Amino acid sequence: MSLDLRSIEEYLCSLAKEQVGPIIKAKSGTQHVYDAKSGARAVDIVTAIDKQVEKLIWTNVKEKYPSFKFVGEESFVPGETTITDEPTFIIDPIDGTTNFVHDFPFSCTSLGLALNKEPVVGVIYNPHLDLLVSASKNNGVRVNGKPFDFSAKTQEMGPLILKTSVVALQPGSAREGSNFQTKMKTYEALLSCDEGFVHGFRNLGSSAMTLAYICLGYLDSYWDGGCYSWDVCAGWCILKETGGRIVGANPGEWDVPVDNRTYLAVRACESAQQQEQYIKDFWACVKGNLKY
Amino acid sequence: MSLDLRSIEEYLCSLAKEQVGPIIKAKSGTQHVYDAKSGARAVDIVTAIDKQVEKLIWTNVKEKYPSFKFVGEESFVPGETTITDEPTFIIDPIDGTTNFVHDFPFSCTSLGLALNKEPVVGVIYNPHLDLLVSASKNNGVRVNGKPFDFSAKTQEMGPLILKTSVVALQPGSAREGSNFQTKMKTYEALLSCDEGFVHGFRNLGSSAMTLAYICLGYLDSYWDGGCYSWDVCAGWCILKETGGRIVGANPGEWDVPVDNRTYLAVRACESAQQQEQYIKDFWACVKGNLKY
Repeated sequence: MSLDLRSIEEYLCSLAKEQVGPIIKAKSGTQHVYDAKSGARAVDIVTAIDKQVEKLIWTNVKEKYPSFKFVGEESFVPGETTITDEPTFIIDPIDGTTNFVHDFPFSCTSLGLALNKEPVVGVIYNPHLDLLVSASKNNGVRVNGKPFDFSAKTQEMGPLILKTSVVALQPGSAREGSNFQTKMKTYEALLSCDEGFVHGFRNLGSSAMTLAYICLGYLDSYWDGGCYSWDVCAGWCILKETGGRIVGANPGEWDVPVDNRTYLAVRACESAQQQEQYIKDFWACVKGNLKY
Repeated sequence: MSLDLRSIEEYLCSLAKEQVGPIIKAKSGTQHVYDAKSGARAVDIVTAIDKQVEKLIWTNVKEKYPSFKFVGEESFVPGETTITDEPTFIIDPIDGTTNFVHDFPFSCTSLGLALNKEPVVGVIYNPHLDLLVSASKNNGVRVNGKPFDFSAKTQEMGPLILKTSVVALQPGSAREGSNFQTKMKTYEALLSCDEGFVHGFRNLGSSAMTLAYICLGYLDSYWDGGCYSWDVCAGWCILKETGGRIVGANPGEWDVPVDNRTYLAVRACESAQQQEQYIKDFWACVKGNLKY
């Protein structure tokens, strides 16, 4: 199927900036009544606004692209919703729900399109910072609508090496059991001077914003487990356009689908070999196996 | 000694915004040659620009306030530099050096004044976000020069409770030994559903920006050890003006000086009693004793 990906990107940009962004900005920090999504032992919170915004997006894209499939965080049904080869919008209406509830200015909307299960359009908009990062396959990256020269930025950043990198880490909402322990032990290994000894880690509380920051050259990598396709689809497309790569969070997972649930995203650098070495060095710090 | 604190705040605001900020913004991400400050087992990096900017600030404030003392990150001499009761500028030319080196847009300048060892003026400027947060004792808080109504924001935020809070954590540069272990175990306790079970943690890689974000109502608290007076002086003054509080990172340290090296900063809330309960609940998750 041949699609005009650039025009879909433009459409999603205007939807994000003109319709979704203003709602996120206006309602950020106002949602004090929320329910736990995944039970009492996790703090994954969801707001009524999430659902409203998803409906708004769905209504819009359905009118414009009636034959496309739609996978959204709020309408997702575990075990039922599957991603096919059809053109499929994969959407997180408000990524960084905890940020949104607490008015931490890193909530955003994350609008992706997958074709043959590959992310081919990505639009991330943070209305607090008025930052719009977008891309479509083979069409490069734009920041607030202007072409972004990532190769110049990549050169400025220098070699990609574990020890001198800044890594994004997010513990997520599940706070017990094997995955939680694997995360805690891996964080320690990455930081410890006897193992990874990275320059630092950052946590922005939003997978999409984290991927956008890697694309902009502000972060070197992002390791996580427990996220869903809508957390990463848009960012994945943008990252790939810059020369970055996404693999699995567990050692050896070189090729993973968009709904893999565990991810290691790394920025572009001077060679594919250097990028692979970084991934191997990172995996050497992973203490256990993340399973979802 | 009677000082016109409001005019000192204004002076520091213009220094931060007009002179320091543009250098930080222009040089962010360009400093690839750096040296380790505290030896091979830590990643505290310092750049030549840090030193240049500190000299610029010192030269300016010395001309304007010739009798005031000056404590800066780069000119600090361990065991020799002491903070007296005299008016003393306590300054971090570039807070978030790792951010600065990596172009992560949370480096800032942090300009504080202490009188009788108490922070009485605070100016924090992040040129990437063009965000200027300032205060002086009994004069309230300003954001980009405009009065900031923190009491309205505090009401909007609702009760301050450990379980529903978002906590800032930074491992810092020392990556072995007892303090590192205490931090790692405390992070786990704060996150675990059996103990703190906080909504989430964030790490921005800058103490000053973290304190500014607490003042703005984006974060609920910040726990750290290993920082210096210049990391917290400006933020401390601003936080106090909003009704927030800073205590020590270790249980029982209710009253601490500006150069305590360990800190727990908490936002304003509806009552001092609620704030104290939050501090006690937080301390109950601290696994060990941070010592510097």
